[in-house]
Amino acid sequence: MAKKYVYLFSEGNGSMRELLGGKGANLAEMTNLGMPVPQGFTVTTEACTRYYQDGRQIAPEIQDQIYEYLGRMEQICGKKFADPENPLLVSVRSGARASMPGMMDTILNLGLNDTVVEGLAKFTGNPRFAYDSYRRFIQMFSDVVMELSKKRFEEIIDEVKAQKGVENDIDLDTGDMKELVRRFKDFYQKEKGEPFPQEPRAQLMEAVQAVFRSWDNPRANVYRRMNEIPYEWGTAVNVQAMVFGNAGGRSGTGVAFTRNPATGEKALFGEYLINAQGEDVVAGVRTPSPISHLREEMPEVYDQFAAIAGRLEQHYRDMQDMEFTIENGTLYMLQTRNGKRTAAAALKIAVDLVDEGMIDEREAVLRVDPKQLDALLHPQFDSDALKKAKPIGSGLAASPGAACGRVVFTAEDAKAWHERGEKVVLVRLETSPEDIEGMQVSQGILTVRGGMTSHAAVVARGMGTCCVSGCGEIAVDYENRKFTLAGKDYREGDWISLDGSTGNIYAGPIPTVPADPSSGDFGRFMGWADQYRQMEVYTNADTPRDARQGRAFGAQGIGLCRTEHMFFDGERIKAMREMIVSETTEERRKALDKLLPYQQGDFEGIYEAMEGRPVVIRFLDPPLHEFLPTKEEDIRELAADMGVTEERLHAVIDSLHEFNPMMGHRGCRLAVSFPEIAEMQTTAVIRAALAVQGRHPEWTLVPEIMIPLVGEVKELKYVKDVVTSTADRLLREAGSPMKYEVGTMIEVPRAALTADEIAREADFFSFGTNDLTQMTFGFSRDDAGKFLTYYYDKKIYEADPFAHLDQKGVGRLVEMAVQLGKGANPALHLGICGEHGGDPTSVEFCHRVGLDYVSCSPYRVPIARLAAAQAAIKNPRN
Amino acid sequence: MAKKYVYLFSEGNGSMRELLGGKGANLAEMTNLGMPVPQGFTVTTEACTRYYQDGRQIAPEIQDQIYEYLGRMEQICGKKFADPENPLLVSVRSGARASMPGMMDTILNLGLNDTVVEGLAKFTGNPRFAYDSYRRFIQMFSDVVMELSKKRFEEIIDEVKAQKGVENDIDLDTGDMKELVRRFKDFYQKEKGEPFPQEPRAQLMEAVQAVFRSWDNPRANVYRRMNEIPYEWGTAVNVQAMVFGNAGGRSGTGVAFTRNPATGEKALFGEYLINAQGEDVVAGVRTPSPISHLREEMPEVYDQFAAIAGRLEQHYRDMQDMEFTIENGTLYMLQTRNGKRTAAAALKIAVDLVDEGMIDEREAVLRVDPKQLDALLHPQFDSDALKKAKPIGSGLAASPGAACGRVVFTAEDAKAWHERGEKVVLVRLETSPEDIEGMQVSQGILTVRGGMTSHAAVVARGMGTCCVSGCGEIAVDYENRKFTLAGKDYREGDWISLDGSTGNIYAGPIPTVPADPSSGDFGRFMGWADQYRQMEVYTNADTPRDARQGRAFGAQGIGLCRTEHMFFDGERIKAMREMIVSETTEERRKALDKLLPYQQGDFEGIYEAMEGRPVVIRFLDPPLHEFLPTKEEDIRELAADMGVTEERLHAVIDSLHEFNPMMGHRGCRLAVSFPEIAEMQTTAVIRAALAVQGRHPEWTLVPEIMIPLVGEVKELKYVKDVVTSTADRLLREAGSPMKYEVGTMIEVPRAALTADEIAREADFFSFGTNDLTQMTFGFSRDDAGKFLTYYYDKKIYEADPFAHLDQKGVGRLVEMAVQLGKGANPALHLGICGEHGGDPTSVEFCHRVGLDYVSCSPYRVPIARLAAAQAAIKNPRN
Repeated sequence: MAKKYVYLFSEGNGSMRELLGGKGANLAEMTNLGMPVPQGFTVTTEACTRYYQDGRQIAPEIQDQIYEYLGRMEQICGKKFADPENPLLVSVRSGARASMPGMMDTILNLGLNDTVVEGLAKFTGNPRFAYDSYRRFIQMFSDVVMELSKKRFEEIIDEVKAQKGVENDIDLDTGDMKELVRRFKDFYQKEKGEPFPQEPRAQLMEAVQAVFRSWDNPRANVYRRMNEIPYEWGTAVNVQAMVFGNAGGRSGTGVAFTRNPATGEKALFGEYLINAQGEDVVAGVRTPSPISHLREEMPEVYDQFAAIAGRLEQHYRDMQDMEFTIENGTLYMLQTRNGKRTAAAALKIAVDLVDEGMIDEREAVLRVDPKQLDALLHPQFDSDALKKAKPIGSGLAASPGAACGRVVFTAEDAKAWHERGEKVVLVRLETSPEDIEGMQVSQGILTVRGGMTSHAAVVARGMGTCCVSGCGEIAVDYENRKFTLAGKDYREGDWISLDGSTGNIYAGPIPTVPADPSSGDFGRFMGWADQYRQMEVYTNADTPRDARQGRAFGAQGIGLCRTEHMFFDGERIKAMREMIVSETTEERRKALDKLLPYQQGDFEGIYEAMEGRPVVIRFLDPPLHEFLPTKEEDIRELAADMGVTEERLHAVIDSLHEFNPMMGHRGCRLAVSFPEIAEMQTTAVIRAALAVQGRHPEWTLVPEIMIPLVGEVKELKYVKDVVTSTADRLLREAGSPMKYEVGTMIEVPRAALTADEIAREADFFSFGTNDLTQMTFGFSRDDAGKFLTYYYDKKIYEADPFAHLDQKGVGRLVEMAVQLGKGANPALHLGICGEHGGDPTSVEFCHRVGLDYVSCSPYRVPIARLAAAQAAIKNPRN
Repeated sequence: MAKKYVYLFSEGNGSMRELLGGKGANLAEMTNLGMPVPQGFTVTTEACTRYYQDGRQIAPEIQDQIYEYLGRMEQICGKKFADPENPLLVSVRSGARASMPGMMDTILNLGLNDTVVEGLAKFTGNPRFAYDSYRRFIQMFSDVVMELSKKRFEEIIDEVKAQKGVENDIDLDTGDMKELVRRFKDFYQKEKGEPFPQEPRAQLMEAVQAVFRSWDNPRANVYRRMNEIPYEWGTAVNVQAMVFGNAGGRSGTGVAFTRNPATGEKALFGEYLINAQGEDVVAGVRTPSPISHLREEMPEVYDQFAAIAGRLEQHYRDMQDMEFTIENGTLYMLQTRNGKRTAAAALKIAVDLVDEGMIDEREAVLRVDPKQLDALLHPQFDSDALKKAKPIGSGLAASPGAACGRVVFTAEDAKAWHERGEKVVLVRLETSPEDIEGMQVSQGILTVRGGMTSHAAVVARGMGTCCVSGCGEIAVDYENRKFTLAGKDYREGDWISLDGSTGNIYAGPIPTVPADPSSGDFGRFMGWADQYRQMEVYTNADTPRDARQGRAFGAQGIGLCRTEHMFFDGERIKAMREMIVSETTEERRKALDKLLPYQQGDFEGIYEAMEGRPVVIRFLDPPLHEFLPTKEEDIRELAADMGVTEERLHAVIDSLHEFNPMMGHRGCRLAVSFPEIAEMQTTAVIRAALAVQGRHPEWTLVPEIMIPLVGEVKELKYVKDVVTSTADRLLREAGSPMKYEVGTMIEVPRAALTADEIAREADFFSFGTNDLTQMTFGFSRDDAGKFLTYYYDKKIYEADPFAHLDQKGVGRLVEMAVQLGKGANPALHLGICGEHGGDPTSVEFCHRVGLDYVSCSPYRVPIARLAAAQAAIKNPRN
């Protein structure tokens, strides 16, 4: 039996999203509910997949089925397709499993041609309506199917209106419509070298094909990548009998939500236009009326619609987004779906639905997209002010939120201006670890180079600071303290605004409104999430400030406290550099002794901030050359400063040069080479813990020390021995019964492959999935940008493996490590501290493979809490 | 029951090597065979391991056992340890599982002190002998156990001889010996601040401990690393009753082999010294006599020894290396072991033993260490000439063989001088791909920088050219065409000689003798190996020359033909650079069209050379920046040459800059970005194959195309589609029924982890274990040198994972990929083409996991053949 590629609406139902797409499934569901839906059929997503398999052709058997179902539709409707006597016209719409902007949307009035339009005019007795429908069809078909410029059609309408001296489409009469049809067809003929297609069945097949084709257009591809929608899914096509909102004064079309999608307020919300077709509402040719007016204008229709809306919300147990058309006073439903909503609305609706008894708490927790929460945690632009602003350029939306401040070009200036009370935006070619302090006091950060995972982006996300990165169109002139963008200069002190959620850059200040994440709904909702989740959520924090921020967002501990950023500040970097330039162990120890009190102080601050909660401190990780200057003048200055010759300093810098620093002398390799570094760091941790424990006897501090980049158990064992012998001595001397733990990052493939051996020497594993991803794929984050665009274009990768954990490859290693590790050491605890720890799909994976906690930057903590809850509800562990 | 740490010789046997070490097991075996062995006991290797576990202390229970067995030995010998009346003296020797130079060897005459020596004099009636023994003991104990300088003792002997006016030790009388004892003890007291130890039991324990300690000395560690001996094994200690070769004219000591260890000739071979102890033979204080003289001097002893030697060879079925002592006309055997031998001797002995019916062919194949074969494949220095030469310096023994030629400093000069008939040695700071041709015509290559895996080293090994790399003491002055080493200048045109097997550098020419790998024994022996092995052995070859060399050494195909080296030559590099600088696909295609005929020609040459055997051609792999110049002047010149602006060229170079080129835009990522490269390469392969097939209808060419650096099946699929559509079109146009295959390297961890998916798109896998090792360990070969020394020092890694495949980590990935790959595609064939393909232990691993072939550089082919045969004999596949 031939495969079924086409379903009547009455043959489907709401559970068939995969096959029929969201729109098709919901049309079928409404049909089954007995609602007034113009009948039609859905061409399945499998037909789309087949279309691509067949080299972008619709196979004859599928064409046959489409025509067969067209016949059945004619029977149901009692009209014949393209029959001048009583013509059946159809709309053709795309409908993927998930709603997807960027794809072809709609063609209305298909089936019209020069003959049928006449028949329609006669049959309806409304020639203006017939020709209006025809000109709309030509316009849409030319634009969407034949890819002619939409703009020219609009110009033609404007020309006709101008000649006539009217302002609104509605003021054009039948003659004008005919004129439009004539001019449209002429334009089509000129552009395409052939007349506008007159054969309705051919029009239909072209339209279906155009929907399939639009699945693969660039905007759709970008949207899919951003939203993790697989390319393989394909789209369905819905062919539906036309009903006409443009049939006169008792006709109209509109869209409405069962609740307010911006605020969540429970009330019908939406708008409609009399005597119009769908695209008029969107195009804004006339200002639509609020849905409440319909109550006065057509009370029965309004009541019927309100009743249907209520029924649909009850049925789907969620806020619905509906399209409807009124044809001569009769209501038709064209679409319903769960409505998109703002984060605030999502929370309110979820909480309200629980209070209304429509869903339970678990269901509510599942209803909010964790990624949406982000918007509630960062300042945003005042939306009215934003509407008026025009971006002067854009870069990558590297870290969300809105920023508005005065331009400075160095981290030092940022600090200085900040100290005198100025709000600043730091503009740099790129940032480096030395800029941290300046970044911390900036409202926002704008860089010319670097991607979503550049230093600026990663650090800004960690801080919750707005950042737009990689705006290559900017030319920075540090010397003259200005930058040029789109031909205009912006000087130090000029106000600019950044939108880190869109990547847009604005000249001048745009007022921002602060986030209010502690609102009642938020608190209640997150409480439910915390109740259901089974993983703990920690934060990555290097400073007391970050630690407090993480706690404010609900972090239960620190999963990654990096120790290297602490070394960049003032006196510390000096001692650090002394350490690096040391030729003997004694010299190195002397320099380390200078660093010890700073480091101890930092740790004390962090322990205080976390009030006895777990803190995992990672030992020194980056290659040492990162602490040395690269510019000739800086080297000269530093040499003088340190009292060594320039030659000596150059020799050190040269000797530290690496071909592939990612895979060089870093991580625990530093501690293996120079165990005195690990000794100093251990001393700082233990002394800090003892001091804070002394001040707070009510807490029970258990320092956790994490050794990075381990690939071999003996490597861990060696460094661990240094740690334990130092720690044990200090604790003995202090007469303290304090316990401590030593664990390791799993971030080198070999560590995952030999995790059983490593687990025997480790108290915990923390998956460093950033590096693990780099090494498993064999590409460097810093370099991959150059070729990943080709990979996206060619559908080789659909998602950025640094944003979403690659479950097939990297995830396999994680699973192996979990199984081997737990097998060898059942007491082992397991976490993740890569950036994936704040990504919802990755968090779900972590739950599934059995991790005990995820750790992410403070601003991602609420996201991780919610994602962990959703994972636990979907896949409860026993 | 307490663990047994000590065994009498009579309690052990030859199979107990692991516990008793080689020497101990063989002493036990000889004891069991009823041979005259002075009795004693062995302290086990487990005691050594325990010594290190206990923090370098001999546990009391082990000490107790040692003293207990000393007592049992006294009973057997009928003497008492350190009893002045009839003293038992002992020797203490190390004895690991494998014979290991670099460890403490021997202490003789232990048990003597100021009292016992008098008793010995009285008991033997030979005071000269007694004091000779005592002074020897002081000397050895001070040197080996107490680490005093040996040299000073020799000076004291020379002083006494000078005072006395004699030349030989043998001319010193009792008084002189007493004087030596006195002076030795004075020196000891002065250095150590305490008298020479007089307590024999303490001496014994000190000596045992010194043996254990010597297991961890630097020389032993280096030797173990080179020979893949695990640190965990530990050494045993043998304590044996002394017999005295220095007891007078009817006494003596010697070493002998059952066959000549240099040639393999079947005849007792060795030497002995009358009235001497063991170390005299080695030290060369007197010239020993050949063993044949013993036949005249002491015929019964000789006959007895010859009979024992014959019996031992029969018993062990291998050539024996024996130590013996004659005490007053009585023969004692002190050691036997399988004798070390040259490669030539190893072959001859193996073949002879088969012919003598002593072993079968399989056993013979197992008898030769594959690594030894190397020596038979490269020219060697004339051994007499070499003896007279003194090295002027040394570097790393990067590629074996001997070279002698005149110094040149550039690859161009090497070519030019070679063309006028000069033999040259190329001296460079380091080499780069552009130097290939110059390297090819050089006798040897000497570099200042770079390790065992530097460009120079890798390429030289591939070519079979001698190379000494990383000689940091050399200062090269390119401008004045000279280099300085150890204070002396060597100018262009000066003769130097290099030994690539030792790393030594010599001034002046040393004559070399060519290798003769086709000798009768070699051919016969390799025939047996080929008969038993179950894997095929291919060679890595980029040129017809390499291909022919590989075939001459028995390669059955080419497992890796890299295509990038072909692009560096003359016109080609120009077209290559044009391709890189192209801004559009058309420009790129134009440049590629220029490369096509060269590439096709190269492939034709290789197909011709291989006469129809398999050839796996790998597509372009390195990042494109490797083809562009880096120096400002070269960039200027190239820009002019290409007719582009310097700015444009700079922009291209900048845009190609990578932070981690290892993990950058290379491998199949190039073909994904620029599929036209893969198209051109496919065209070249298929056209070449068609042309050669046309000329040789008797062959059946099946081109094999290998896509590098795949990490995701869709990546392979994309490039494969480019290849197949191009190839299918060409074959269709040619009307040829030729088959071809498309496979991939497995060199990225993710490829191994997703090998099932990849296998469904691949005809074959070739494991690229160089890159796979880098990514699995997360370290770059180019950078690892900096920290690996710390790792070796600290016993974290005992072997270089780039030399020997890391079976635990990388090997695990290989096994996974084999299982997943074969599971998904049973027809998949599997090979390896990393450098590990020529390493015997790695080859054994490849056999075990089920690979179909290994591929290695031509000069390693015989090694791989033998290693594969040994693997198959040890672990036959069914």
